[in-house]
Amino acid sequence: MNTPSSLNHPIVEQSFTLIDQEIGQHNLTLLEYQIARRVIHSTADFEFINLLKFSPNSIDIGVKALRNQTPIITDVTMVRQGIVNLVAKTFNNPIITAIENVTRTLPGKTRTETGLLECSQQYPHGIYVIGNAPTALLALCQQIKEKKFKPSLIIGVPVGFVSVLESKKMLAQIDIPQIRAEGRKGGSPVAAAIVNALLILAWENKI
Amino acid sequence: MNTPSSLNHPIVEQSFTLIDQEIGQHNLTLLEYQIARRVIHSTADFEFINLLKFSPNSIDIGVKALRNQTPIITDVTMVRQGIVNLVAKTFNNPIITAIENVTRTLPGKTRTETGLLECSQQYPHGIYVIGNAPTALLALCQQIKEKKFKPSLIIGVPVGFVSVLESKKMLAQIDIPQIRAEGRKGGSPVAAAIVNALLILAWENKI
Repeated sequence: MNTPSSLNHPIVEQSFTLIDQEIGQHNLTLLEYQIARRVIHSTADFEFINLLKFSPNSIDIGVKALRNQTPIITDVTMVRQGIVNLVAKTFNNPIITAIENVTRTLPGKTRTETGLLECSQQYPHGIYVIGNAPTALLALCQQIKEKKFKPSLIIGVPVGFVSVLESKKMLAQIDIPQIRAEGRKGGSPVAAAIVNALLILAWENKI
Repeated sequence: MNTPSSLNHPIVEQSFTLIDQEIGQHNLTLLEYQIARRVIHSTADFEFINLLKFSPNSIDIGVKALRNQTPIITDVTMVRQGIVNLVAKTFNNPIITAIENVTRTLPGKTRTETGLLECSQQYPHGIYVIGNAPTALLALCQQIKEKKFKPSLIIGVPVGFVSVLESKKMLAQIDIPQIRAEGRKGGSPVAAAIVNALLILAWENKI
């Protein structure tokens, strides 16, 4: 598995071998498993094998969008930090962090939500990666429902106890390419792992 | 719970109420639970109530060190990113990221490990926060064993499948104030949550 051109550190390949041995039965396709395995590597939480949901062709769509240098919009800086190195080694996609893209305040809205609304106007076909803020995911879904923009792909994995289940349910009901984690779990490392797995699939010509 | 002076966003307080309702029986002290609850908030993973281990007085020691503006040394930038806002609102501790503090290459060592070894010379009494790199934690423990430095506190929560259990086992055997997560779980959000919980305890004069 560890070819000289591999973007994965040998320790990552070693972890993947251990995960392969322990994973047991699951319903993911081979490509979906490539994504899930990286999430499990980042969290040591095998539950993600059942939590991750992929809309049809979402991986193909994500890989093509990354190869086309589509901008990646993250909700928070921790997600950005988790992908910046691999993006720099591969397709150099612009990375925009919503919370740093706020030029005004909107009453009753969080800063991340406001930043994402501004991004949705500036980058209507971007790849949107939500690892933290359910309010941001809800706002994105509302914009899509109102046909105000149409991102290439949404990675929807906010984490926590308030509005998280609702935001993921709303995402699931929207006809947009998506990779999401059901339930309360998720987070910046999960979001970063999904983007990094897609980058590696796209770069190493595995598909 | 949500006083006007609270550093916690109302959504965080709301999450804490939900966690309080669902947590059930556990063996943590009231102060330890303050830390654990924030970790659970960041991960939506209740398993941490059993995984987190605190050496005697580690919370007191951590709170005092933070109040004294002791430098905080993180292994990776994602941990830094997770604490930088709250540090800026409270004690303005210097934050040093080991992986960005590398001035030389040491054969057979990872960059994070090399950076941490350099930090251990520059900041012998720092608060060391390891959210990712087990090699870095192993190197720190070795330095302490050889009495080369004596940090104020180690937060040892690397995540993953290779060397992680070994690094936590070595930390557990060393007589240094510590907060650690047993098993394979951990990560940057866990590390950041522990630091942020300590900062809030320290700032809001709850102890």
